[in-house]
Amino acid sequence: MSTNASKKIINNPLTCADDLFDGLVIAYDGKARRVGKRSIVMNDLRPDAPALLVGGGAGHEPIYHGLIGKGMADGAAVGEIFAAPPPDIVLEATQAVSRGKGVLYLYGNYAGDVMNFDIGGELAADEGIEVRTVIINDDVCSAPPTEKGKRRGVAGLVPIVKLAGAAAATVDTLDELVRIAQKANDMTRSVGVSTKPGSIPATGAATFELADDVIGLGMGIHGEKGVGLIPMCTADELAPKILDLLFADDLELNAGDEIVFFVNSLGSTHMMELLILLRAAKPILDARGLKVHQTIVDNIVTCQEMAGVSFSITKLDAELKALWDMPCESVGYTKL
Amino acid sequence: MSTNASKKIINNPLTCADDLFDGLVIAYDGKARRVGKRSIVMNDLRPDAPALLVGGGAGHEPIYHGLIGKGMADGAAVGEIFAAPPPDIVLEATQAVSRGKGVLYLYGNYAGDVMNFDIGGELAADEGIEVRTVIINDDVCSAPPTEKGKRRGVAGLVPIVKLAGAAAATVDTLDELVRIAQKANDMTRSVGVSTKPGSIPATGAATFELADDVIGLGMGIHGEKGVGLIPMCTADELAPKILDLLFADDLELNAGDEIVFFVNSLGSTHMMELLILLRAAKPILDARGLKVHQTIVDNIVTCQEMAGVSFSITKLDAELKALWDMPCESVGYTKL
Repeated sequence: MSTNASKKIINNPLTCADDLFDGLVIAYDGKARRVGKRSIVMNDLRPDAPALLVGGGAGHEPIYHGLIGKGMADGAAVGEIFAAPPPDIVLEATQAVSRGKGVLYLYGNYAGDVMNFDIGGELAADEGIEVRTVIINDDVCSAPPTEKGKRRGVAGLVPIVKLAGAAAATVDTLDELVRIAQKANDMTRSVGVSTKPGSIPATGAATFELADDVIGLGMGIHGEKGVGLIPMCTADELAPKILDLLFADDLELNAGDEIVFFVNSLGSTHMMELLILLRAAKPILDARGLKVHQTIVDNIVTCQEMAGVSFSITKLDAELKALWDMPCESVGYTKL
Repeated sequence: MSTNASKKIINNPLTCADDLFDGLVIAYDGKARRVGKRSIVMNDLRPDAPALLVGGGAGHEPIYHGLIGKGMADGAAVGEIFAAPPPDIVLEATQAVSRGKGVLYLYGNYAGDVMNFDIGGELAADEGIEVRTVIINDDVCSAPPTEKGKRRGVAGLVPIVKLAGAAAATVDTLDELVRIAQKANDMTRSVGVSTKPGSIPATGAATFELADDVIGLGMGIHGEKGVGLIPMCTADELAPKILDLLFADDLELNAGDEIVFFVNSLGSTHMMELLILLRAAKPILDARGLKVHQTIVDNIVTCQEMAGVSFSITKLDAELKALWDMPCESVGYTKL
């Protein structure tokens, strides 16, 4: 093929996951290596330490597989486009990151990922590797607080993986790593909105339908239903709507609390817009007395050229703040 | 207004530059401050040192104003959307970054920028500030090597600003800063291609026209004419076409040379595609004997939601390699 409906610069619509994976390994400049079918693992791992393994479907780059690195995840199991990594890939990645102290699986709450990581973990347990799981479920709009098990994982995974990665670089036991990753997840909430779908690499078809005059409030990164459609509006009108949903949730955010505030583009929404939304959001955070310890403005959790944004808030206690302040480096997120 | 044709999340199409500027200052988390009308300057500048000032039109975020930071530029003068900063803004930025050892202006070769930075520099000279200029002109397809003065500045500005920023953090004289910035520019070449236009925030209109079945080879970031249209093709077909143009230019790239290789998205082209292009490019770089010291895969030099990519090569001698290896931190580019 020499073209496709969405004019993507690819080779074959059916080999995108493998092709981008090859490119990702190259992008790590020798610091990471390919393992097995489609796993990527850092080369210089701390000996005798618990391991942090992330993973998920491809097509959302730079997550998840671009979040491995120094002070980030140790490795990633990579699926097909928009599809969870199968159990054999989870197993090969688990074996590669394991250094005798167990492996934490940290990934977003999607049925396919849960099923495949669970099976992969059972296969790993059969080989004597202790596996634990923390499921990321930061998406406030995907279920009420009383049904957290139904909540999806979205952009909050970036601060969560960063914090868990800092823990993986320092703690000595899997229990400690699990505790900190679970706390990072419990302290993180996200709300996303969408204005335009992305396109499916294999077909060029839109990932979902959305009228030109509306915004999907609370929509998931694959177009999953949110809390409703609202009329297209300005940044100043939209920012408080998103923040109201975050503030109405069960994470207490009180005056004096320190947070990481992450404004994420879902793909084609330009940084100009992210910055204009940040301008609208900051006075509202200030009015609530929240202290922004770090702002992130970037497109890290994407769905192809989907347009839309999300706000994520991670509340930092003293332990998480110290972990946050550790440097990290990855294709997807780096800080000094 | 509550909507626009391109469905951008903004407030007023005519205040985008000011609004995003406010957001950018917030994104620096207190490490940078607003100066005057529309300049941004880092707070902790090395005393008695030559200064590095960048700047250009808005709408291409995170460049240029998102490239200030530790080991990056000291400040930026920011224009309106797609328009050079006027002389009074250049002057206010110059005054703010100046610490008695002179100021280097480093920006892309566009007529409006050259004119306004020149006038701003004259105004600064009237106040006793020594100003020098290095104009970035890495775009191979905008003029032949014999007419470098006509070449535009495109994505190569990222490695160039990073190298000049490392120099600004270490050298003691403006002469040395000028010499290194000029060398970084002279050692850098870029070629871009476009598949779809972005949209102008003020009107929603497309930034240029391009048929659905072609790629604009060598097009500039505002849609400036390149070396011609080619049929839409695969990543494996496109990568050698771009590299052939880079290799045919007058920067000698021989076996054993070390380079920075930067694969940039012009906006909505997804990292999946960048990684697939990197996979196609790497064997060609390898076959030529080039050693990639650092790969960058990101969207840093953009034009709203324009689709397209560019490859930039910066050749590193021992001095530039040492500067490259220094850490840097900015909204647009960070490395450990």
